[in-house]
Amino acid sequence: MTTSREIRLKSRPNGLPTPDNFELATVDVAAPGAGEVQVKNLWMTVDPYMRGRMNDVKSYAPPFQLGKAMDGGAIGQVTASGDPAFKEGDLVQSGFGWREGFTAPAKSVQKLDPRGLPVQTFLGAAGMPGLTAYAGLLKVAALKDGDVVFVSGAAGAVGAMVCQIAKAKGHTVIGSAGGAEKCAWLKSIGVDHVIDYKAETNLSAALAAAAPDGIDVYFDNVGGAHLEAALNSAKMFARFAICGMISIYNATKPEPGPSNLAQLIGKNIRMEGFIVSHHFAMMPQYVAELAAWHAAGKVTWKETVFEGIEKAPDAFIGLFRGENMGKMLVKLA
Amino acid sequence: MTTSREIRLKSRPNGLPTPDNFELATVDVAAPGAGEVQVKNLWMTVDPYMRGRMNDVKSYAPPFQLGKAMDGGAIGQVTASGDPAFKEGDLVQSGFGWREGFTAPAKSVQKLDPRGLPVQTFLGAAGMPGLTAYAGLLKVAALKDGDVVFVSGAAGAVGAMVCQIAKAKGHTVIGSAGGAEKCAWLKSIGVDHVIDYKAETNLSAALAAAAPDGIDVYFDNVGGAHLEAALNSAKMFARFAICGMISIYNATKPEPGPSNLAQLIGKNIRMEGFIVSHHFAMMPQYVAELAAWHAAGKVTWKETVFEGIEKAPDAFIGLFRGENMGKMLVKLA
Repeated sequence: MTTSREIRLKSRPNGLPTPDNFELATVDVAAPGAGEVQVKNLWMTVDPYMRGRMNDVKSYAPPFQLGKAMDGGAIGQVTASGDPAFKEGDLVQSGFGWREGFTAPAKSVQKLDPRGLPVQTFLGAAGMPGLTAYAGLLKVAALKDGDVVFVSGAAGAVGAMVCQIAKAKGHTVIGSAGGAEKCAWLKSIGVDHVIDYKAETNLSAALAAAAPDGIDVYFDNVGGAHLEAALNSAKMFARFAICGMISIYNATKPEPGPSNLAQLIGKNIRMEGFIVSHHFAMMPQYVAELAAWHAAGKVTWKETVFEGIEKAPDAFIGLFRGENMGKMLVKLA
Repeated sequence: MTTSREIRLKSRPNGLPTPDNFELATVDVAAPGAGEVQVKNLWMTVDPYMRGRMNDVKSYAPPFQLGKAMDGGAIGQVTASGDPAFKEGDLVQSGFGWREGFTAPAKSVQKLDPRGLPVQTFLGAAGMPGLTAYAGLLKVAALKDGDVVFVSGAAGAVGAMVCQIAKAKGHTVIGSAGGAEKCAWLKSIGVDHVIDYKAETNLSAALAAAAPDGIDVYFDNVGGAHLEAALNSAKMFARFAICGMISIYNATKPEPGPSNLAQLIGKNIRMEGFIVSHHFAMMPQYVAELAAWHAAGKVTWKETVFEGIEKAPDAFIGLFRGENMGKMLVKLA
C-alpha cells in the first residue's frame, strides 16, 4: 500500500451535512519506521456523535479541522510493521477511520482478537455502541427487576442493543423507530411494543398506550418529542439515561427543550447524560455477557453497509435520515 | 373559639393567581369530641408548590377543591382537648393551614417542641423548606468537598438555606436573586458571588463571570433561563438538584425547556428532581446540624410576614412577584 484515499472536512455544515461538506483526497502512505505500523483499513464506522465534531465547538471530542482528514473508529490489517509486537496480517482497531490506510505509531493501534465474530462487529454490537447500550442501561439508568424500559432510536446500533439487553434480562421493552421495516425488525427480535414515530402524530399518547402503567427507564437517543413523551409517561423515581439527541444535532437554531421538565420534580426523576468513554472499564464484563447472550440466541444485530471510502459521507448523512437499520458501516476493503 | 375564618379556592387561576381566585368564609368550630383537639392557628405557610394544587391536575399533592378551604402547613395552639395526650396550650403542627382554627382528630396534629426557637421557624428554616435545602444539597446533589455551588431563588426560604448550608461546609457559593436588597442580604450572609437576575440581560454570561471554572452543583428553584445558564456553566459530572421551577408555575401555555439540554451528554450531568417528603427520614439529622450551625452563628434566616388570614392570598401571590425575602409567612394570632 503506497497511497490512501481519505475523506476531509471541506466546509462546516449548516444543518444537515451535504456531500459538499466533504472532499476525497489521496495521500501517500509511508513505509513504517521503527515503532510504527502500516495498516490497511477494512471497515470504518460512522456515528451520530461525529456531527458535533463537524462544528467548530469545544466538546468532549475535539472538532474536526477544515482541510484535514476526519477520524473515528476503524478496523484494519497490518500491511507492514516496524514494531516487533505486530506482524503483517494482524487485525487492529484504531481511531484512524475515514481513510483507506495509514502509517502510525504502533502504540496508537490495538490488536484485535475477533473471537469468531465478523471483525466489523467490534465497531458495533461488540464495540462502543454495544458498550454504550450496556453501560447506559445497567449503570446510568441502574436497571432493576421489573422495570419497564422505553428506548428511542431503537433500531439503531445502540438502541437495538438496549432493547435486546433489556429483553435478555426479562424486561418489558417499548421501542420507537421510524418506518414499518424497522418496526417489524424490532418486533422480530422480541421488543414488546413498537412505536413507529413517523406514523404517530402524538408520541405521548402512543407511549401512554404502549405503557399504560408508565415507564421506569428511558434510554434516550433522540431527545425532543421523545423526551417529552418519556417525561409524561415516567413513573415515580424513573431513571433516564441520556445518550444522544439526534433530533437536534442538525438544528440550525437553538431547539427548545421539552415543556414538561417540571415533571422531574413531582416524579423524582433522575435524568443523567453520559458518554461511553467513562465506562470503558465495563468492557470485559460486557463482552463476556454478550458472548453468552449471543450463544444463547438472545442477541443479534443488523448492519447497513456502504462500500468504498468515497461512500463514507453518504453513509454518515444517512444516519440522520434514518437510513440505517442497526449499525451503519463503511466497508473499505 | 367558636368560629374560624378560612380561605377557600373560589376559582382556578389562569396564569398568576389574583385575589378573585380566593374567598374568605367564616365557619363554626365545634367543641372537640373524644379523641379530638380544637386548635387555634398562630402561623401558616404559603409555598410556591401550592400553585400547582390550584390547577385541577393530578400531581404529588392533590388539587385544592373549588369552594373548599385550602390547606397547608400551620403552627397552632390547642384551645380545648378531647384527647388525653393533648392539653390546652400545647403547641402543634398540622396540615390545617389557610384557616384561623379547627377541630380535628388528635392524631392528625403533631406536638411541637420549639427548642427555644420562635415557633414559626418550624414552617421555614427548621421545617420543610430547611429540610428541602439539606436533602437536596447533600443527598440529591451529593455535595462533595470542593464543589462550586450555584443556587437560584437564593433569597427564598429554601434557597437561603442552601446557600448557608453550602457555606457552612466550606463551599464557594453563587446565588441568584431578584433586586438589590435581596442581593445585599445574600452578600451579608456570606454568599461569595451574587447575581441580580433582574439586572442581568444574559444570565449565562453572568454565571460564567461568577464561576469562571464552572459549577459542580446547581440547586434549581427557578427553571427556565437559570437552568439554561447552569447547563452552560456545568463542569463534567455536575449534579443538578431540581427542586422547583417557579419561573413556569404560572405559565398559561407550555413553556419550552432550555435549548441546551444536549450538554447533559458531553458533560455527563445528572439532573434529578425531588420532593422533600421522600426525605423526611433525614429530619433528625438535619435539625441536629441546624442547631449546631445556628449556635455557631453560621446560619440565619429571614421572614416576610403578612398579618391576618385575609392577607393570606396576598402573601401567596407575593411569592410569584418575588416579594419575600426568606420565608413567606402569615401570622394568624
